[in-house]
Amino acid sequence: MQETSKLKIGLCQLSVTSEKKVNNEKARSSIEYASKQGAKLVVLPELWNCPNSSDFIALFAEDFEDEESASSFKTMSQVAREQKIIVVGGSVPERSGDRLYNTCCVFSSNGELLAKHRKIHLFDINIEGDIAFRESDTFAAGSDPTVVDTDVGCIGIGICHDIGFPELAMLYRDRGAHLICYPGAFNISTGEALWELEQRARTVDNQLFVATCSPSRDSAGSYPIWGHSTLVNPLGEIVATVGHDESVVVAEVDYSVVRITRESLPILKQRREDVYQFIGIND
Amino acid sequence: MQETSKLKIGLCQLSVTSEKKVNNEKARSSIEYASKQGAKLVVLPELWNCPNSSDFIALFAEDFEDEESASSFKTMSQVAREQKIIVVGGSVPERSGDRLYNTCCVFSSNGELLAKHRKIHLFDINIEGDIAFRESDTFAAGSDPTVVDTDVGCIGIGICHDIGFPELAMLYRDRGAHLICYPGAFNISTGEALWELEQRARTVDNQLFVATCSPSRDSAGSYPIWGHSTLVNPLGEIVATVGHDESVVVAEVDYSVVRITRESLPILKQRREDVYQFIGIND
Repeated sequence: MQETSKLKIGLCQLSVTSEKKVNNEKARSSIEYASKQGAKLVVLPELWNCPNSSDFIALFAEDFEDEESASSFKTMSQVAREQKIIVVGGSVPERSGDRLYNTCCVFSSNGELLAKHRKIHLFDINIEGDIAFRESDTFAAGSDPTVVDTDVGCIGIGICHDIGFPELAMLYRDRGAHLICYPGAFNISTGEALWELEQRARTVDNQLFVATCSPSRDSAGSYPIWGHSTLVNPLGEIVATVGHDESVVVAEVDYSVVRITRESLPILKQRREDVYQFIGIND
Repeated sequence: MQETSKLKIGLCQLSVTSEKKVNNEKARSSIEYASKQGAKLVVLPELWNCPNSSDFIALFAEDFEDEESASSFKTMSQVAREQKIIVVGGSVPERSGDRLYNTCCVFSSNGELLAKHRKIHLFDINIEGDIAFRESDTFAAGSDPTVVDTDVGCIGIGICHDIGFPELAMLYRDRGAHLICYPGAFNISTGEALWELEQRARTVDNQLFVATCSPSRDSAGSYPIWGHSTLVNPLGEIVATVGHDESVVVAEVDYSVVRITRESLPILKQRREDVYQFIGIND
């Protein structure tokens, strides 16, 4: 991490359509826009290339080994290289053998694939009279935590419901992340209840930055989306946020706040490993 | 836990004076008041019998083995028995040998001491130009997590800065707590930033209730207190709260919300023990 440096990031809250080609163009132009505003890293939304409906997902899935047919994968890589910007690629449905994963690809500013995060916690929920949804009917779950070393800092990656599990953020903190990016598509009910709260909780408990990026509410698909892409600092303060319409938020990550916060109230040192212990098994 | 039962609790936000006898009387009368409103459990504030200043703490400390001189300890036990109410006794400074602990005593509705929680995480903070405080200069830290089985449910106990550590709440959840009580005396700066956020974070991450109880702002001592005693439900919703003046909040814990929340969005089952592991060493 460049401790004293400031990093402009772009959160591209896209309105997802039912045409992949249009979505690829939207991703491209929003990244170009963020780059022009000075962003050195952009985050795309969860399932930005595909309507969030089970009947579309298999259809829009990409096999990243077969780059020619993986137009969304290729678009991200190209724009990253052209704009010299790090792309945290939200997620696209990934086909691997006979399985589908909800996968975030991270590209370097040279367009290289730095990391691939397959959503670990799939969203299965059943609130009577409100929402019923079983993501695990469509996707297989990943099993690997993802922390990426980039030239703009050490970044943890989670997708949507991954944010609901404090253990993952703690694991990323232990591995040196000072920024966690969670592309996500919360629905309206859990969005109102949990979206902001969980972001702020992860920041103050781990004294790091959290950035989220959602599709806009008017996105195609059967799933009513909350929106509200947000950047929160290590004090739980909202640095920048937006409503539920399509937009690009450009905001600043000031890494020195991580250091100052950790020095002022050194909770990471005050933890009591003699009383409780947290283990990232894959360490 | 009586899963379908509802439990009225009282949060006694006392104005602490520099006279122990007066503080004991305030504790007594506030517990009696809460009991008349139907409360079956009350929570007192952190350091309710003593001004929150290092020069008072040794003076007001009690040796619980020497019950005759331990007037605050005795008061809590007596009122619990008289009112047939469970008392989560905030904290009083405890003298044990040549050490002082910041200790919460929990009394059954028969007036028996059920548990003693010595604050595990002492509050040492240094924010330039704002607040500098070193609780560890005065107190020794406890090392034992505290979960109490009572006739109104299984209850975890933390004191103030203990709430800043998600591990402790996770440990209590794993041991069956559906309510965690945190007597606390946050200061104004961390109070505004963290008090509500940390309570709500502990509830949604563990799908249980959290109750906090603070002294009122006009309490004696050198330490500017936030107040805002609060009950939060497993959805992160504030059931009841109050400002910073002396008052008694009586509010309802509906344990069925714990069950319904955990069934609707089963995050405790969705945790990935194959990816990360949390261990309460003292299990």
